[in-house]
Amino acid sequence: MVQLKEDERLDYLLAEENMRIIQSPSVFAFSLDAVLLADFAHAPLKRGKIIDLCTGNGIVPLLLSRRTIVPITGVEIQDRLYDMAIRNVEINELNNQLTMIHGDLKDMPGKYGNDKFDLVTVNPPYFKTPNKREQNKSDYFTIARHEILCTLEDVVIACSKLAKSGGKVSMVHRPSRLVEIITLFKKYKIEPKRMRLVYPKAGKEANTLLIEGVRDGNPDLKILPPLYAFDDKDNYSKELEGILYGKVE
Amino acid sequence: MVQLKEDERLDYLLAEENMRIIQSPSVFAFSLDAVLLADFAHAPLKRGKIIDLCTGNGIVPLLLSRRTIVPITGVEIQDRLYDMAIRNVEINELNNQLTMIHGDLKDMPGKYGNDKFDLVTVNPPYFKTPNKREQNKSDYFTIARHEILCTLEDVVIACSKLAKSGGKVSMVHRPSRLVEIITLFKKYKIEPKRMRLVYPKAGKEANTLLIEGVRDGNPDLKILPPLYAFDDKDNYSKELEGILYGKVE
Repeated sequence: MVQLKEDERLDYLLAEENMRIIQSPSVFAFSLDAVLLADFAHAPLKRGKIIDLCTGNGIVPLLLSRRTIVPITGVEIQDRLYDMAIRNVEINELNNQLTMIHGDLKDMPGKYGNDKFDLVTVNPPYFKTPNKREQNKSDYFTIARHEILCTLEDVVIACSKLAKSGGKVSMVHRPSRLVEIITLFKKYKIEPKRMRLVYPKAGKEANTLLIEGVRDGNPDLKILPPLYAFDDKDNYSKELEGILYGKVE
Repeated sequence: MVQLKEDERLDYLLAEENMRIIQSPSVFAFSLDAVLLADFAHAPLKRGKIIDLCTGNGIVPLLLSRRTIVPITGVEIQDRLYDMAIRNVEINELNNQLTMIHGDLKDMPGKYGNDKFDLVTVNPPYFKTPNKREQNKSDYFTIARHEILCTLEDVVIACSKLAKSGGKVSMVHRPSRLVEIITLFKKYKIEPKRMRLVYPKAGKEANTLLIEGVRDGNPDLKILPPLYAFDDKDNYSKELEGILYGKVE
């Protein structure tokens, strides 16, 4: 049995599939956004390679492993999160498919070379200006949420280099950063192809943006149907329930 | 009484408000998109000036006149459409508020000077490559739908020059052109601030994009709740009905 440290707990990730995940409320708990990203990304099924940047406790690779057999690498710069990520691979017996790397995403093109991956996924820090008052008290959270160790441009550069020509880059972020994301994608030759907006509920502004581009792709953006997180009774929407607990087909 | 020509007909625009509009199915009939643009645009209410480019038969100025008292100028390059537009102003007794100009949008900054308008609205031609097979048989339609007399960049340049610093530019277009629109808005200093996506119905991809930017504005995009055109019984959605026939508050 994998050991739990300090304030960590072992949660069910997808109960039906017997997947478990170690997380710690005081350090890092995976967010809905990571689950949405794993659902949204177009993963190669049988051939190719995937890399997940800013992987945290490895949530996106864990979820992607349910629907692809290709090798998936996760990259995390924070040691306590990396440490959780490797135990999450172990506990779910995914050592043959998943590899966790403790390192800086900016160094990954140097380590793996350019044009290597069929899919790059990333759930980067959302907040641009780390300002003392706005920063979360925990350093773990601060680094995960603010652009302290990497800017959005660093992230897009790494994605652009790691993706093969024709490979996909899938990102979750805030809608307020869409203009910047599109500008950076274009600058680094990732053509936006699919976009989906997540709304907390009907009548509200979007609060999450899912966007996928193709390295060296041709311009032709599709905007997928909106996803509502909650219904008008504040329960998870049917669609989100399907994503969280496994699809009912 | 204003005279109807050839195959023109006099339609009700907003029955409750006794607004009428001349259109001709073989030349130009206003589209839902123009109605959505008029609904979406943030119009100054009492002070300022508005200009509508690619005005066609004047549908957007007509609709905007219901909720603002500021002067509105419409610009149309095609003579038959311009001719309908001036009669539409007359028939609705809006000569004091609306002015129709027969001319090329590219000449408007020269005519009016830069930095003049609080709001620029535009429903430009949607299709990039005029290719013989795809072009509509009618020249009127071809010019209205394809970028023959102006490209998207020409349109954005004119909008950028005509808008005051702090003034708004509101556009309706296809979602597939979003990346290009955002790139051109940024290039010509129009910061995208509000975006709304229109979906034909639940579960379908967006088919219409409404986007508004502020000349020299600060980055901060909001994505408004989605608008569905039809409900699951293929009737107009309640919201679209409100836009088309007058709001029920």
